[in-house]
Amino acid sequence: MKFEINKVDNNARSGKIMLEHGVVNTPAFMPVGTSGTVKAMLTDTVKETGSEIILGNTYHLMLRPGMSVIEKAGGLNSFMNWEGPILTDSGGFQIMSLSKLCKISNDGVRFQSHIDGREFFLDSKLSMEIQNFIGSDIHMIFDQCIKYPSSYDDVKSAMELSLKWAESSKNSFFNKKGRGLFGIVQGGVDAQLRKISSKELIDISFDGYAIGGLAVGEGQELMLATLDCTLPYLPSDKPRYLMGVGTPQDIVESVTRGVDMFDCVMPTRAGRHGQAFTKNGKINIRNAKYAEDNRPLDEESDCEASNAYSRSYLHHLFKSKEILGAMLLSWSNISYYQHLMQDLRFAINEGNLVETVNNMYDNWIKKNNI
Amino acid sequence: MKFEINKVDNNARSGKIMLEHGVVNTPAFMPVGTSGTVKAMLTDTVKETGSEIILGNTYHLMLRPGMSVIEKAGGLNSFMNWEGPILTDSGGFQIMSLSKLCKISNDGVRFQSHIDGREFFLDSKLSMEIQNFIGSDIHMIFDQCIKYPSSYDDVKSAMELSLKWAESSKNSFFNKKGRGLFGIVQGGVDAQLRKISSKELIDISFDGYAIGGLAVGEGQELMLATLDCTLPYLPSDKPRYLMGVGTPQDIVESVTRGVDMFDCVMPTRAGRHGQAFTKNGKINIRNAKYAEDNRPLDEESDCEASNAYSRSYLHHLFKSKEILGAMLLSWSNISYYQHLMQDLRFAINEGNLVETVNNMYDNWIKKNNI
Repeated sequence: MKFEINKVDNNARSGKIMLEHGVVNTPAFMPVGTSGTVKAMLTDTVKETGSEIILGNTYHLMLRPGMSVIEKAGGLNSFMNWEGPILTDSGGFQIMSLSKLCKISNDGVRFQSHIDGREFFLDSKLSMEIQNFIGSDIHMIFDQCIKYPSSYDDVKSAMELSLKWAESSKNSFFNKKGRGLFGIVQGGVDAQLRKISSKELIDISFDGYAIGGLAVGEGQELMLATLDCTLPYLPSDKPRYLMGVGTPQDIVESVTRGVDMFDCVMPTRAGRHGQAFTKNGKINIRNAKYAEDNRPLDEESDCEASNAYSRSYLHHLFKSKEILGAMLLSWSNISYYQHLMQDLRFAINEGNLVETVNNMYDNWIKKNNI
Repeated sequence: MKFEINKVDNNARSGKIMLEHGVVNTPAFMPVGTSGTVKAMLTDTVKETGSEIILGNTYHLMLRPGMSVIEKAGGLNSFMNWEGPILTDSGGFQIMSLSKLCKISNDGVRFQSHIDGREFFLDSKLSMEIQNFIGSDIHMIFDQCIKYPSSYDDVKSAMELSLKWAESSKNSFFNKKGRGLFGIVQGGVDAQLRKISSKELIDISFDGYAIGGLAVGEGQELMLATLDCTLPYLPSDKPRYLMGVGTPQDIVESVTRGVDMFDCVMPTRAGRHGQAFTKNGKINIRNAKYAEDNRPLDEESDCEASNAYSRSYLHHLFKSKEILGAMLLSWSNISYYQHLMQDLRFAINEGNLVETVNNMYDNWIKKNNI
C-alpha cells in the first residue's frame, strides 16, 4: 500500500491511502461491519454516504460464519457484497473483551466463543492467516489489549507481549500489492510505555501505526493526553489510526493532533437506539418533543435519511420498534460522520482547520438539543 | 376513481385503477405498511420492486402515532415518504383480532388498545374521518369481521351488521377526485350469506368490492370455494379485492377466478423470519444446507436483494440475527410477489394465463426446496 500526504495544517494532515480495493482519503472514518455487515445498512448505502473503507472484526468472523465459508466465498468483499477497501482488526481486542475463559500465554490466547462456548486458540500466525483469507486491504498485528485501569506492571507486560506478537505478526503477514500491515502502539495511559512501544514498533517497521488501548473508559482528557505523548514518536509519512474512536468531538480533537484514521460503532449503535447526530448536536429522537416535529433531522444534508423523513416520523418508528427506524438513523449517522470527515479534510486542504473546528463547536454548543 | 379493464382471459382480467396518487395496474399486490412502514423496507425500495400501491392499517395508525400527528404531517403519504396510492382498511378486522375487551354494538366497537390498554371507540363515521385524515386513495367500509369458525347465526348477524355499517360508511365517506370507497362482502363460508351480502352491497353501490372474512383459518380449499360462490355476484366493471391473501398459489388461483387486488403481510413477515420466495419454490435460508451455498436466491431476478447476495451470506445474517437479513429477504420477497403479478398481468394480456399458471406450478413442485 501507499500513503501520500496532500496538505499539512499545524499537526493535522490530509492525504490518501492507495489500497488493493481503492483509494481512501484521510482523515477517514471507517464504519464498523462487525459480522460482515455494517448493521442495518446496505453496502450501496454505506458507499453513498462517502465511506471509502469499512472495518471487519476477525474475532466475529472466525467464529461465525467461520473461515471456511469466507474462503469459499472468495473473501469478505464478495461475501458481503462490498467492493471497497476493508481493514480487519486482529481479533485480540474482542477476545479479551467478549470471549469467555480467556487464557493468555506468550504463545497466544486460548478462549471460548461468546456465542456457543466452543474453544478456540488464536496467535499472531493464525490471525495473519485469517486476515489473509478475509482478504482485507489493511491487516492489524495481533496484540494484547488490556483493560482500563490496570496496574503499571500489567500494562507494561501487555505492551511487551504485544511487541513480541507485532514481530511475529510481521513474519507471518501475507503481503501483496495494495495491502498493508499496521502495528499497534500499547502502553495504557503511561507516556513512557507509549514511547517505548512506538519506538520498538518503528524498528520493526509497519505500513501504518495504530494507537490501541484507548477509548476503553479512561475518558476524553486522558485519551487526548496519551495521544499527545504518543503521536510525536510516530513517523509522519505513515498513516496513524486511533482505534475504536469515537464521538464527533473525539475525532475532531484527534484529527487536529494528526490522526488519519478512525473506526467506531457509535454512529450505527447510537442509530439503532434512537440517537441521531446532526450538525447542530445530538438528538434523542424518542424524546416526546419530536412527536409532532415535522422538520427533518437536517434539511441541508444531501443524505436522504437526514433530509426526507420528519423527526415526527422517526419518533414514531422508534416508539413502534420498527426496523426502518434503525435503518434510517444508522444511515443518517454514518452520513453525518462522513460529512464531518469531508469538512475536516476540506479545512486542512484550505489551511483553516482551527477556524472550522471553532465553528463546529459553536454549533454543537449553541444549538445543542434542538 | 376510475377502473378500466384491459383484457379478459376466461374469468381473469387485467386492468388499471386511476387514483389520486397514481395508476395501479391490476391484478395488483399491495405490500402491507401496517404502522406507516412496509417493515424493514425504504419506500424507494418498495417502489423499485414494482409496487404501485401499499396498504395502511387504520387501527394501528389511530393508536400510534394517532390522528393528530398524521393530520399535522399532511396525511400518510408525506408522513411516511411514499408518493404512490394507499389503500386503508377500516380498522374493523384489527380491532377484533388484536385489541383487548372488544365490545361490539350496533353503533360501533368499544375496545382497548393492545399497546397500552387505553379505551377507544370506533364506528363507521369515525373510520371514514380517520381514513380521510390519512388521505388514502381507497377507503374501506367499516365492517365486522368474525372469527372462523363461528355459528351460522353469528356469521349471519355479523354480515347484516356489516351491511348497516356499509351504508353508514358510504354516508360518511369524504369523497374527492381519484378516491374510492370499497364495500366488503362478508358471510363466512356460507354461499347464501355471501350472495346476500354481495347483492345488498351492490344496491348501496361502491367503487370496488372486497371479499373479507377469508384467509382466517378456513384453508385454501374452502377459501376458493367461497370465492367461487361470491365472485359471480360482483359486478365485472368494478375492482375485486381479496383481503389478506395470501400465498403465491392463493394469488394465482384467485386471479384465475377474477380477483384484481390482494394484500398480505406474508412476503415481509416471512422475510423477517428467513423464508424466501423464489420462482423455484420457498427457501428457509436458516437451513444448514445454505451455509456454504454461494448461489444467489435467484440469479435471473433483476432485484438486487435476490441476485447480488449469496445464500451463504443470507444464512449467516439470519444466524447472526443481523437486521440486514430481514431487510434483504423482505425486499427479495416483495420483489418476487410483484414479479408474480407482472407475469400474471402479462399472461392475461397475452391470453395464455392457463399455460403460464401450469408452468409456474411445475416449477414450484419440481424444483421445490432447491
